[in-house]
Amino acid sequence: MNYHEAAIFLEEGENNDKFNSHPRDRDALPAYLVTHNHGFYSLDLFAALLLMSLAVIEQPAVIQGVPVGVHTSIELFGLFLVGISIVMQLRWLGPRTFLKHKRSVVKLVTWVVMIVDAIVVIVSAKTHFRVTRALRPIFFIDNRYLGGVRRFLRQILMSVPPILEVLGILFFILIIFTTLGYYLFSPNPKDPYFSSFGQAFVSLYVLLTTANFPDVMMPAYARSHWSAAFFIAFLAISLYFIMNLMLAVVFVVFSDIEKDKFRKLLVHKRRACQYAFRLLVTRSQPTHIPFKHFKGLLKFFRPSTNERDVFLMFKALNRSQSGLLSLNEFYDVYNICSFRWRPQKAPQPWFSELPGPIRSCCFLIQHLVTNKWFDFFVYAVIVVNAATLMVSTIYISSKGPFSPSEVEVSWDQLVCIAFYGVEALLKIVGLGLVDYMSSGWNVFDLVVTILAVLGIIAEKFANSFFYIIILRPLRLLRLFRMRRRYRDVFQTLMILLPRISSAVIIIIITYYFFAIIGMELFSQYDMKNCCINTTVEQFYHYDNTTFYLDYYYLNNFDNIFIAGVTLFELTVVNNWFIIMEGYVAVTSNWSRLYFMLFYLVMMVVMSVVVAFILEAFTFRMEYNHTVEQDKDRDDEQVRINVELTKEELSMIYRNAGDTGALQRYAAELRLEGTKKYEGVRQRTRVVLQRRMYRDEIPSWLAEADQEQQNEATPFMSPHASPHTVPIPTPASTTTHTPRHTPPSYMGSLNPNGSIASDSPNT
Amino acid sequence: MNYHEAAIFLEEGENNDKFNSHPRDRDALPAYLVTHNHGFYSLDLFAALLLMSLAVIEQPAVIQGVPVGVHTSIELFGLFLVGISIVMQLRWLGPRTFLKHKRSVVKLVTWVVMIVDAIVVIVSAKTHFRVTRALRPIFFIDNRYLGGVRRFLRQILMSVPPILEVLGILFFILIIFTTLGYYLFSPNPKDPYFSSFGQAFVSLYVLLTTANFPDVMMPAYARSHWSAAFFIAFLAISLYFIMNLMLAVVFVVFSDIEKDKFRKLLVHKRRACQYAFRLLVTRSQPTHIPFKHFKGLLKFFRPSTNERDVFLMFKALNRSQSGLLSLNEFYDVYNICSFRWRPQKAPQPWFSELPGPIRSCCFLIQHLVTNKWFDFFVYAVIVVNAATLMVSTIYISSKGPFSPSEVEVSWDQLVCIAFYGVEALLKIVGLGLVDYMSSGWNVFDLVVTILAVLGIIAEKFANSFFYIIILRPLRLLRLFRMRRRYRDVFQTLMILLPRISSAVIIIIITYYFFAIIGMELFSQYDMKNCCINTTVEQFYHYDNTTFYLDYYYLNNFDNIFIAGVTLFELTVVNNWFIIMEGYVAVTSNWSRLYFMLFYLVMMVVMSVVVAFILEAFTFRMEYNHTVEQDKDRDDEQVRINVELTKEELSMIYRNAGDTGALQRYAAELRLEGTKKYEGVRQRTRVVLQRRMYRDEIPSWLAEADQEQQNEATPFMSPHASPHTVPIPTPASTTTHTPRHTPPSYMGSLNPNGSIASDSPNT
Repeated sequence: MNYHEAAIFLEEGENNDKFNSHPRDRDALPAYLVTHNHGFYSLDLFAALLLMSLAVIEQPAVIQGVPVGVHTSIELFGLFLVGISIVMQLRWLGPRTFLKHKRSVVKLVTWVVMIVDAIVVIVSAKTHFRVTRALRPIFFIDNRYLGGVRRFLRQILMSVPPILEVLGILFFILIIFTTLGYYLFSPNPKDPYFSSFGQAFVSLYVLLTTANFPDVMMPAYARSHWSAAFFIAFLAISLYFIMNLMLAVVFVVFSDIEKDKFRKLLVHKRRACQYAFRLLVTRSQPTHIPFKHFKGLLKFFRPSTNERDVFLMFKALNRSQSGLLSLNEFYDVYNICSFRWRPQKAPQPWFSELPGPIRSCCFLIQHLVTNKWFDFFVYAVIVVNAATLMVSTIYISSKGPFSPSEVEVSWDQLVCIAFYGVEALLKIVGLGLVDYMSSGWNVFDLVVTILAVLGIIAEKFANSFFYIIILRPLRLLRLFRMRRRYRDVFQTLMILLPRISSAVIIIIITYYFFAIIGMELFSQYDMKNCCINTTVEQFYHYDNTTFYLDYYYLNNFDNIFIAGVTLFELTVVNNWFIIMEGYVAVTSNWSRLYFMLFYLVMMVVMSVVVAFILEAFTFRMEYNHTVEQDKDRDDEQVRINVELTKEELSMIYRNAGDTGALQRYAAELRLEGTKKYEGVRQRTRVVLQRRMYRDEIPSWLAEADQEQQNEATPFMSPHASPHTVPIPTPASTTTHTPRHTPPSYMGSLNPNGSIASDSPNT
Repeated sequence: MNYHEAAIFLEEGENNDKFNSHPRDRDALPAYLVTHNHGFYSLDLFAALLLMSLAVIEQPAVIQGVPVGVHTSIELFGLFLVGISIVMQLRWLGPRTFLKHKRSVVKLVTWVVMIVDAIVVIVSAKTHFRVTRALRPIFFIDNRYLGGVRRFLRQILMSVPPILEVLGILFFILIIFTTLGYYLFSPNPKDPYFSSFGQAFVSLYVLLTTANFPDVMMPAYARSHWSAAFFIAFLAISLYFIMNLMLAVVFVVFSDIEKDKFRKLLVHKRRACQYAFRLLVTRSQPTHIPFKHFKGLLKFFRPSTNERDVFLMFKALNRSQSGLLSLNEFYDVYNICSFRWRPQKAPQPWFSELPGPIRSCCFLIQHLVTNKWFDFFVYAVIVVNAATLMVSTIYISSKGPFSPSEVEVSWDQLVCIAFYGVEALLKIVGLGLVDYMSSGWNVFDLVVTILAVLGIIAEKFANSFFYIIILRPLRLLRLFRMRRRYRDVFQTLMILLPRISSAVIIIIITYYFFAIIGMELFSQYDMKNCCINTTVEQFYHYDNTTFYLDYYYLNNFDNIFIAGVTLFELTVVNNWFIIMEGYVAVTSNWSRLYFMLFYLVMMVVMSVVVAFILEAFTFRMEYNHTVEQDKDRDDEQVRINVELTKEELSMIYRNAGDTGALQRYAAELRLEGTKKYEGVRQRTRVVLQRRMYRDEIPSWLAEADQEQQNEATPFMSPHASPHTVPIPTPASTTTHTPRHTPPSYMGSLNPNGSIASDSPNT
């Protein structure tokens, strides 16, 4: 039981769940366990995605002809699945704690509204104005796997108040210039942009995005060249100054939040460790935990870890080598759990045991591929290849439009591909497959080369496969390996990938929200030849005579994907007012609200995304400055080494009942006495941050420990209250470290692998 | 002589001139002095501006009809003036040092080319293709007063290499997508944007700026909705990722440069102080300088400073109160010289000596205006005023276009203006004029109120003055005072003003450069009804039938100002390709080079400007974080207090021969014994930086002193070589501080004000 609760604490620490979402007592535990496993998380995710993807078959649909009854039934099924998790959560938290948990309450309300909405639809057998569908992403965001997205969303929301202040300035300036513009330009009958106060406001609002520049200036400019000053002043102030100010504000707020978030997560995890630690200590050993209890914890916290790795982790954590973990050592448990363990490699290359001639051959190859001139030669070939590709494309282009039937594989392409293939082979032979694949760049090389070979084959045997040839230029991406700055960029990109995907998911959710509303509002209008006698008439012209600008009727809300493309066009901002004015012409002026609001929301989201990218790269570059002296800063991985003695190894394998492994290692151990293991983890952003803020972390933690002294603790097991066993504060722990315990911790290992009689806290 | 050279050193330190531009010997001094005074600087600036403004009367001219002979003569006159400064500089530096000075060489070469060019024009009596005119800003930038602009320019140039690397990635991606785009879309006969490789490149180059989106996508989108993926991928990668990466790179480089520049300036000034100090010490007193020599220095370094202020500065510098300045104390000389001195104000308000009833009346007013509810009330009136303004404008707007003859002053406007006037008067009475004017916000209030009153009067008496009414909304700017963040924004803006103007000057110079070239290349074409049968035909349509989009012929290069507006339109980027395609249609494809190059240059300049604004605001916000505990951080001014005793005061005034002042202070001094003075300076960015980097500065300086030990020194006076009097390094100075000198420094004051026999270094 205690092992289980300790593992729950560690999980809550890891997922940044509040400790008040901890199961309230032992009876609530089953409900907690049912909803907290990957099976249930996946089911929940499936239900959320199912609900969101219903937009594909609901009117206006991508796949036409699905009856209302069918998609509403699916919807009710999805809502039923979501309902299970709500009920379970209510069960394990109790209604009072549940109502304090804001996110859960929002989820519940949305769920009820949707159930009602769906039932109304299924009863009346036809859809109505269903904007509630826009709220479906709430279930999606609430999923356990989307913690990163929630965190990003919280950062966006925290950036909103300062953004609103800057938007205040912006709107103020907008109003001032609207008034000026109206007084100055409305007397000009040829100027449609300032004919009334409202029109002037819309024109200047659009001018903020530059989308109608210079057209909006032209009628006034034609009258007097001095009027240019008005527009230049407006753009200089609003666009070049205020907008950058907004970016600066968001950037500073974002950087602060980022650092603060790191601090909070660190403190939260530390607290989780403290709670877990308190459940694992025994009465007889109140400040340290033995291996047995650590193993018990890991069985619940990381069920898939094997006996050997558990022991390696314990030994890596136990820096004092006392055989017992102090709280200070235990704090590192999250870090240790993210290492993957493997026997340390022998320093000899893989081919050292091959027969003589082959070995010396491999040795030569190894020398060749690790030579820097070899790399230069490869780069030279890539550059030549790139040049020939360019020249051949330009040559094809000079003969007019490309036609797919002309595709042919030229001999130079074949030579290059062959060369890449040989290079990859040589490297694999020279370095060994494992070493070769351990570099992301090599994997990239290999994939591109294999794709190229497949492309060539496809081109040779099936003409219709011509799309493969468009992959040709991708080979050139290898060139990015050459310069240090480019490598930095790509490494940063890799480290950021999880957060970039969070940003992308948030953008997609925003799109989904606005797309549903847009479809409900605008999908019934046909935009072909709309807007006669408006300023945008010509863009919606449709009679096949004009050639270039008559396609805007395609930018509509006819289904979820088309709406998505239209919203992307609004995001890019150029000419967005043409789409807006089109819908204003067929509906009413109120439609502007939708488009202007979307612009504002996207501006906020994009500012945060830009600030995020800026922050990530400046962080990386500052990090590079800070750790310039560290030798391993370019390494994408962090390593840790642990040695196991013969006795320890035999203990482990005897424990695990794996006598085969024991015999396998026997020979090796007889030679060396110990066996070395290596733990490896990816260098994530958190690792970088921990290095970067190394100097500040101790003060944060001390502060947090101070605060914690007076807080109530959320223990499920009543006998684990802070009163029976006091929290070992870090200060007291370090002074009390029991150096007198036996240096070997064999004694704490129980050969049966079961929990011994000295079970914690009983 | 030594005083003079020491002052020259300090000046060089202040202007960040290299010490190798120091006059090489005593004979060169006259030439140095002729060119180093405000008269000559102004003449030089006048010549540079004269040359640049010639573009107004040269073909294609703003002011038509000036004969070629006239403007070329003016040009030769301007060049003659510039020539003087070149010759003088040659004289004082000697040809060898001159040729080492890159900027001077560039100036000389440009000057020779221009002289030749102008003579050719005056001989042939007609202008030819004169792009050399684009180089005129070189003389302008070289002017002494444009040090800030040169520094900014250097920062831009230093940001170029990393920008080029990112541009490398960008162009690489552009080429890949061009190839893909060509293969994918050129088979579509209805797609003009990808018909050839070159066309595809131009389309995607323009798409980088989003100017042709979504039009460029539409033909492909009409064929297959999947093609949207191509454009979305391109924009996501190039625009949202790479462009932000570029901004991040520029931002980081810029922040580093900014800090480094501050460090270098600090070290440079320190070195200047050391050189100056070495010239001021005497053989008998080799580590300290007495007041006499300090005064001698100031006579050349700050000739307008009066006797009292010199003494106050000396006393403020002399923190050890030894009566002799050590080198460490002397280092602060730049800071001290930027203070303005005034007698410390009495704590009583100004009206304390008025007769009884008036005094108590003033006292009441003072209480009123310093009450916070008074401020809230004023804000409320402003908000109401803003609302009525808005409503009345909307009301006017509802009756159709505004006509200037309708202007009338409504009673509510009069009431508001009257209220503002009364408020300003009350505040002036309550706080005293000096205190009132010492706050920038109050000055702003007063100016706006006076303008409003003038506007009302103008409206009443002359209808044609209606432009004044457009000033009405400006009053609302007062609202910005309300929130802390807005105040921060405005304060940052004020501190940045000099650097913002540098940025603006650089943009204007870039415009000038491109405008001259654009005029030479394109001014001979008439764009009306040009471009028949091109994609941009309709934009240049000119027959008064269409209404909205037929004004693009106005975006031309017909004179320097119109070219400037056109270039601004290219800077804003929206629809810039219409202007480019227009000129491509009337000239050749090579014209694209001009427009694309301008875009690239402006992208670099604007990135740096954006990075600069970002950096400034993030610096400010970080500064606010750092100094949160400082009480006076909101104060725009820095203060320093010095007390003068009766003896010191009488000494000063007797020295200055001002017996009147002596008698005036006599009564006051009899009462208190000492008189307090206050030095005030504006809180500039340098002040903020010095506070911000307080912890790092000592290590910078120690490092710089270390380096300096092995360098040759550029002394003009041969007997001031480092061998005769060793540099007092800071370490040795602090240890040698002569505490045994008399605590009063009356002894070093010479009543005649002349340099005594114990002159330095003789």
